[in-house]
Amino acid sequence: MDIDLVTIFPEMCAAPLACSIVGRAQEKGLLVLRIHDLRQWATDKHRSVDDVPYGGGQGMVMKPEPFFACVEALRRDDTRVVLMTPQGQRLDQPLVESLAAAATHLIILCGHYEGVDHRVVEHLVDMEISIGDYILTNGAIAANILIDAMTRLIPGVLGDERSAVEESFSHGLLEAPCYTRPVDFRGLPVPEILLSGHHENIRAWKHQRSLERTAQNRPDLLPQTESAAKR
Amino acid sequence: MDIDLVTIFPEMCAAPLACSIVGRAQEKGLLVLRIHDLRQWATDKHRSVDDVPYGGGQGMVMKPEPFFACVEALRRDDTRVVLMTPQGQRLDQPLVESLAAAATHLIILCGHYEGVDHRVVEHLVDMEISIGDYILTNGAIAANILIDAMTRLIPGVLGDERSAVEESFSHGLLEAPCYTRPVDFRGLPVPEILLSGHHENIRAWKHQRSLERTAQNRPDLLPQTESAAKR
Repeated sequence: MDIDLVTIFPEMCAAPLACSIVGRAQEKGLLVLRIHDLRQWATDKHRSVDDVPYGGGQGMVMKPEPFFACVEALRRDDTRVVLMTPQGQRLDQPLVESLAAAATHLIILCGHYEGVDHRVVEHLVDMEISIGDYILTNGAIAANILIDAMTRLIPGVLGDERSAVEESFSHGLLEAPCYTRPVDFRGLPVPEILLSGHHENIRAWKHQRSLERTAQNRPDLLPQTESAAKR
Repeated sequence: MDIDLVTIFPEMCAAPLACSIVGRAQEKGLLVLRIHDLRQWATDKHRSVDDVPYGGGQGMVMKPEPFFACVEALRRDDTRVVLMTPQGQRLDQPLVESLAAAATHLIILCGHYEGVDHRVVEHLVDMEISIGDYILTNGAIAANILIDAMTRLIPGVLGDERSAVEESFSHGLLEAPCYTRPVDFRGLPVPEILLSGHHENIRAWKHQRSLERTAQNRPDLLPQTESAAKR
């Protein structure tokens, strides 16, 4: 996977994307990631990237010129341009999977301030992505989320190939509770069935607890699972 | 707002939370944020924080002892303990607002690996939060999202008080497209109405474009807005 990440806050991305699994993916050559400061494509002497909005309103709008210059400098034949913005499609695991599977060159642009000049959205960007229904101060930390989620799906990145798929949302339910040692922690025991060694009973218990946990924390996930099970 | 953030990857949080608006909120004393390495509460000589799961399964589970020791060391009378986990309630702007308004002391614990021993969830944590329906390599970058979203709601943090509320999701629709100079960029013009100075027409245009954009990128948001309008 090959990613150019463009933001006015490169320092918000450098450290989170340099350590742990995403860092090791780069060391192994499985992920090539370049982080750019958008200001290097600013054209005026102040390197400004924003200006006041037409038609009034709060805050500043990001100018079109730096984004166009940046994408024109970085674009290749297989490039898809993604803009991180609260106005985008909402990211979920199937969208992460389809982006990771496409395995093209991604340019990820980060929105900031009140928004990005709409000519960038209409004429430069292939896909607008939002990581959730909340407002952030900037798109750089949202890009960290997208890159992290895609990277763990690259074959060879996770030690255990199954870990990437046997997770919440991959099968439509929240995961069952998990336990490790000690078997008794301050009088709180691990459920006995997990110590039984009876794999079939454990599987049934986990499924039941998955359903209960999903019903409690994410009831919205239940109907689509049930309808999926009927297929 | 007063936050203790606990993770095994403090370096993933330090830089993103030190710059821009969240950094300035700390400089102004509006946000007090301490980032801790969970391993300092590990009890064995290897400072291990994870162990194999009971009942079999992939990956490692985070041990209960370090979390209990950590929360017992940091807890005050007004503390709420939040765990970042894909099994949690899904974060949205109303949840961000309610957490920010509570203005208590937050301890934010970050899940990692396959999950956290469920005794932590049941007996130590007040709320499990997920930032979205996708899988991350760790909860530290999810905590960055939660802290960023809450911080911009602290009074005095944003230069313009209105910016915090006049955003996507605060009123249930995606924002209208925005434009800044130049008025003609490579033959692509700013919509004429935005240059008209006719505020009422501009407001109507923005509302119409908000509806269109929401219908295109987030049709799921439309019905609840319509039903809200009927109230």
